Formats: sequence, C-alpha cells, structure tokens
Amino acid sequence: MGITKFMTPEIIFGFHSLGQVGESMLRLGAKKIFVVSDPGVVDAAWVEKAIGYLKQSNLDYHLWTNITPNPKDVEIDAGVREYAENGCDAVLGIGGGSAMDAAKAIALLGTNEGTIHQYEGIDRVIHPLPPMVMVPTTAGSGAEVSQFSIIVDSKRKVKMAITSKSLIPDIAIIDPHTLMTKDTRLTANTGMDALTHAIESCISLAATSLTEVHSLEAIRLIAKYLRPSAASRYNRKAKEAMAMASLHAGIAFSNAILGAVHAISHQLGGYLDLPHGEVNAILLPHVLEFNMIAAPEKYRKIAATFGENTSGLSLTDAAFLAVKAVKDLVRDLDIPDSFPDLVLQKKQIDFLSNNAVQDACMVTNPRDMSAKDVNMLLQKVLRCEH
Amino acid sequence: MGITKFMTPEIIFGFHSLGQVGESMLRLGAKKIFVVSDPGVVDAAWVEKAIGYLKQSNLDYHLWTNITPNPKDVEIDAGVREYAENGCDAVLGIGGGSAMDAAKAIALLGTNEGTIHQYEGIDRVIHPLPPMVMVPTTAGSGAEVSQFSIIVDSKRKVKMAITSKSLIPDIAIIDPHTLMTKDTRLTANTGMDALTHAIESCISLAATSLTEVHSLEAIRLIAKYLRPSAASRYNRKAKEAMAMASLHAGIAFSNAILGAVHAISHQLGGYLDLPHGEVNAILLPHVLEFNMIAAPEKYRKIAATFGENTSGLSLTDAAFLAVKAVKDLVRDLDIPDSFPDLVLQKKQIDFLSNNAVQDACMVTNPRDMSAKDVNMLLQKVLRCEH
Ligand SMILES: [Fe+2]
Ligand SMILES: [Fe+2]
Repeated sequence: MGITKFMTPEIIFGFHSLGQVGESMLRLGAKKIFVVSDPGVVDAAWVEKAIGYLKQSNLDYHLWTNITPNPKDVEIDAGVREYAENGCDAVLGIGGGSAMDAAKAIALLGTNEGTIHQYEGIDRVIHPLPPMVMVPTTAGSGAEVSQFSIIVDSKRKVKMAITSKSLIPDIAIIDPHTLMTKDTRLTANTGMDALTHAIESCISLAATSLTEVHSLEAIRLIAKYLRPSAASRYNRKAKEAMAMASLHAGIAFSNAILGAVHAISHQLGGYLDLPHGEVNAILLPHVLEFNMIAAPEKYRKIAATFGENTSGLSLTDAAFLAVKAVKDLVRDLDIPDSFPDLVLQKKQIDFLSNNAVQDACMVTNPRDMSAKDVNMLLQKVLRCEH
Repeated sequence: MGITKFMTPEIIFGFHSLGQVGESMLRLGAKKIFVVSDPGVVDAAWVEKAIGYLKQSNLDYHLWTNITPNPKDVEIDAGVREYAENGCDAVLGIGGGSAMDAAKAIALLGTNEGTIHQYEGIDRVIHPLPPMVMVPTTAGSGAEVSQFSIIVDSKRKVKMAITSKSLIPDIAIIDPHTLMTKDTRLTANTGMDALTHAIESCISLAATSLTEVHSLEAIRLIAKYLRPSAASRYNRKAKEAMAMASLHAGIAFSNAILGAVHAISHQLGGYLDLPHGEVNAILLPHVLEFNMIAAPEKYRKIAATFGENTSGLSLTDAAFLAVKAVKDLVRDLDIPDSFPDLVLQKKQIDFLSNNAVQDACMVTNPRDMSAKDVNMLLQKVLRCEH
C-alpha cells in the first residue's frame, strides 16, 4: 500500500438535525447564505424549514432553485451570477445529488474565476471556497461528504467530473426525516445509487482499510433496509438506516473513488439526461459480472455482507452470490434489467463507449475495460439501430 | 438514536508519508512551526527528519522537547511561553500520546488566554487554534485524530481531560516507518492502549454505526497483528497494520468516547505517573468482566472479530470469549494481570475511586459504576495497606 489520503466533512446526523443548519452557518462565519435547492424539495417544505432556521440565527439568505436533474453548465453560470449579485458569502445545498452538485459548483465559482469547464479534472481549484453546508434529502448521492461535483457540459453532452478536496463541504447535516416525503421510485433509484457507490468503492483499486469498513457497512444496511424503505415512506427505522447507508457509501467513494458503472453512467446520463440512480441500477449487475475475475475475495465478502450463505462454497461460487444478491434486489425494487425503450444508433454507442473509457472513474475499476467491452455491455442493455 | 456528530482530521497514511509534513504546513498557511516532541523520538532521528522536510518547504521552526510521559500543566506553561517568545504560528506534534497531547494544549493556549486548567471539561475553547499537524510515532494513543488532550494537574495529581472539536488536528500524518524504532514493551503497551480505545468505544453508550465500524476494524487488526508487531521491530506488514488499527481506534473513540478503563486509568496515571498503555492493559480484563451484562451482543461481536469460534454458543458463553481473547493477548504480551509492586493505603484507594466516578469517560461506560465498584476493582489489581 502506498500513501493514502482520507477526508470527510464534519457530520451531523439524526432526526431533527436540520435544526442545526443556522447554528452551523454561524459557526462558519456566514452572513448571507445562497440556498440552492430544486422545486421538488421546495414543494416538500424542507427548504422553507431550513430557511426558518437560518432566520432564527439572524442570517440573511437568497433562494435559488433554477436547476434540473443532471445540472447543466448554463444553470451554474446563472447561479453564480445570482450568488454575486446578491452579495452572498456562503452556500447551503439542500436536495438530492443534483442540488448539492450545483451548490458546490456555484461555491467554487464564487471564489474562483472563469467557467466551470476549466475545473474539470483533478485538483484544479485555486482559491478556498466559501463556507458550504449540505443537507441531502435523498439517501443516495453522497454529495454531502464527497470531493466531487458532476456537471453536464451542455454543448458536448457529457458529464464533467470536478474533483477537489475543496469540494468537500464544511458540514454535512443528514436528517432522515427528509426521506419521508419521497415516493417509492425515487427511494429505490437513489438507494441503488448508494449501493453502487458502496460496491464500486469496495472493489476499487484505491480501496483501503479506512474506506472498506464504510463500503461494507453501507452494503449491510442497504441489503437489510432498502426494500422496507422503498415499501413505505413512514418507516422511520428504514429511513434512518438508509440515510446512514448513503452516508457510509459517500465517505467510502469520496476516498476510494468509483468504477465502470459510474464511468458508463456518466456518459448515458450526460447524453440522454436519464435518472442517475436507475441507470446505475441497470448497469450494476452487468458490470459486476464483467469485474468478477478481478476481485473474487471482495465479491465473497460482499455476498456474505448481503446475508448470502457462502459457507462451504468455492471462492468463485461464493463470489457469484454477490451478483445474485444485487440482481435479486434490483428485481424486488421493480427496476428493469435493461432500458425498456432506449434505441441508439451504432455510432452513438461508439461515441458513448469511447468517452466512457476516458472517464476518471475507469482508472480505479478493478478490471481493465476497453471501448469494445463497454460497447458490448451497452448492447446488452439498450437496442442498437444500424 | 438522537443527533450524533462525527468528525476526523484530514488523514495522510502510509510509509514515507512523513515527507508530506512541510507541504501540509504550507497548505495550512504556517510560517514558523513550534515542533513538540520528546527526547526518545529525537533520539530515533524522526524529529530531525521532520525538520528536514520543514526546511525543504522553506519553513522556519522552533524545537521544544521539555516534556515527560503524562505531560504536566507546568510543562505546558513553559511550552506556551516558548511558543510566544519565538513568534510561532503553527504546531507540529511528533511522538506518542504525551507529545501530541502537549502539542495540542500549547496550540490551545497559543490563541486562548489563561492556563490549561480553565479548559478542563467540554467545549470551553473560545478562539480557533493555530494550524496543527500531528505525527504519531507509536501505534496507540490516537491523539492525532482525537478531540482530546489529557494533561496532569500537578497540584491535584489528577489528569484533566480537555475536550473540544478545536483540538482535532487539521492534518494527521501516519507513517508506519516510525514504529520500527520502538522496543517490544512500548509496542505492546501502546498496542494495548489502542485495543482499549477500540473496545471501550465499541461498547460505549455513544457508539453509532459510524464509530462501530472503526472500533471493530481496529479490534480485527490488533487481534491479528499486535503479537507479530511486538515480536519484531522489522515486521513492516505488522507495523502498517498496527498504525492503521490505532488510527481506526482513534477515529472511533474520538467520536464515541471511552469508558471505565480510561476513567480509572486517568486517576492511576495522574496520581502515580504510570505508563498509560500498561495501566489500561491491566485494567481492561477486569472492567470487561464487570461490563459484560451491559452489552453481551457487542461482546459476542468482539469475540467473533477476535477470531474466536462463537458458533453454537449461547449469547453469554459467546460474550465471555471476548474477555478470554483479551486475557490471552495480555498474557502473550507478557503484561501482568495486576500491578506487581503497587501498594496503596486505603484512603488513597478511596481518593482514586471517588475521582474515577467523576471522570468524563465514566458517562459513556455501558454499566453504571459506583465508587465502591471501582474500589473493589482496584483492590484486585494492587495491594491495599491498612
Ligand atoms: Fe452515483
Ligand atoms: Fe488511551
């Protein structure tokens, strides 16, 4: 093992922890907060509640919600202008991965020049960011603890990954209560995103003892609680467990990075504007089959963590149970095993495959994957029109 | 579960990571570094090496090594004067728990008024501390990641626990190479301190999913690697594993706090100036027997993590294997099961017992412990003279 780094924000977790948002901002020296959210979260009244806590702490704010799922560079540009015009000095992201990724990108450009495109890649950030507090309202993205922000380049139709320790928020506030306003579909999709983070970080070439414990605890919790969480929006215990699982998975992947599922999913998501969690859920079993020869012992551990009975089995048979466990979960959540109505031309699939192998997440995938490998995998999950 | 908080410093881990000490200080904006260490670490040339890296980064420094094991308030006073007189603006602690605890206390008084006594207790720190980097050279104390500093009040002869998020260093640099200059006794004692952190944080009333994964991983690594690490100073794999174990244990106990072993050990250590790790190693089996009824399921998990075969056993029998595993380890490390030559008067034991139940670590111990309970426990491990 070479030199490894590990970093997380300060974490505040639990029902009613949202109430600490004002105090947290005060502690960071903030005066006027740029609140980034999306219309769905506003509808569920979480933004109103958060703003109430800011007011209680005598903090000024400006609310901005002009973002779409898979946030676009043009939306960030507009957001940064509003941030500056309103004299803000701190950012609160409240919502799913899209809202938090947008909040981070705006914070970055709040103190760094140019457009977001210049910061694509690793460690390009020059100046420290304004104080950032993140409040996830889905149990999925892990953006509240990660060093990434994923923004769509709307001209190239690709997702740009901005990677920097500076993007790790100062404080992550995780209130499981916010999960109780989400429907089955969103719960299932975001939960599968969290599972993908947990599994990809576990088998990542950059995994260490520090990250693996978080990957495995996330898998254990998701195996036990994602089904009941998707089944009922009122199951407090399941919501708390899924919020914790997503947090563990976020800590793991922020430090161990991801793999081929995300490398491919970033392309499909950027090109076709598809829901990130569902794309991952569809790709995950296929990528797991491809990756198996690279990490059979990790697969066996994952299978055992899922609760599969691996005793007395050969390593290969035990490892395969990890794939089976994931497929069972995907099926139980009513997620299809391929994209039902997706038809692409051969040259579009080539374009996506060639971009996927360039994605930063491919570097830590445990098995080398060529553009041809990606191409074959994509042809399994969508229809190719010649 | 109520609201829980979790926080760690930025962590840099691995052989040769000491080389990042200059760059880390630059990143924190430091100009003149107050280097706190102890004569043993200086002898082993680690301080010289660290200072070399500071110089390479064109950083100025002032070296201060006037500390003893179980650092005293009067030593801190002297250190703070030197810090100020030399115009330092950052602190590097390099050594075992004593050097790092002293470094933290000096950093605290570098920006906060008065003497260290005023900060005993929880969250009394007012002003932000100067940048702090910690480099542990024993696999034990966990001070490189924790929110504690333990300083002896030399008049009262008690250990004061200063607890504050402000005491969490900015960056912890853990280089397993530094463990290769330690003898068997120090390796065994500090390793048992790490095990005590792991076990006490695991059964603590403040343990959460976020801390438990770190407690258990520390126990797994210590069960496997402390014996070989104590056996040879050249076993790189064992040193790396023990450095990692100590780090995991430190993350766990900084966030889940400790229990009765430390509550009692703080008294014995403060009153008699005994080596912290050995005191813990002697107390741990006795406290574990006392605590067992409070957390049998955790004990069973600990036993299984130690590699004990718990299958087919009743919960109580399985739980007991945790105590057995700890006793076996203590025996294999040639640590006695009581203090060989320690004779105290009845009223001294009463004094220590009454103070132990007031110790902050007692609050998270899973079983209520009265002064009488502590008294009986102490009479098992030392001789009482009437
Ligand atoms: Fe994701
Ligand atoms: Fe300790």
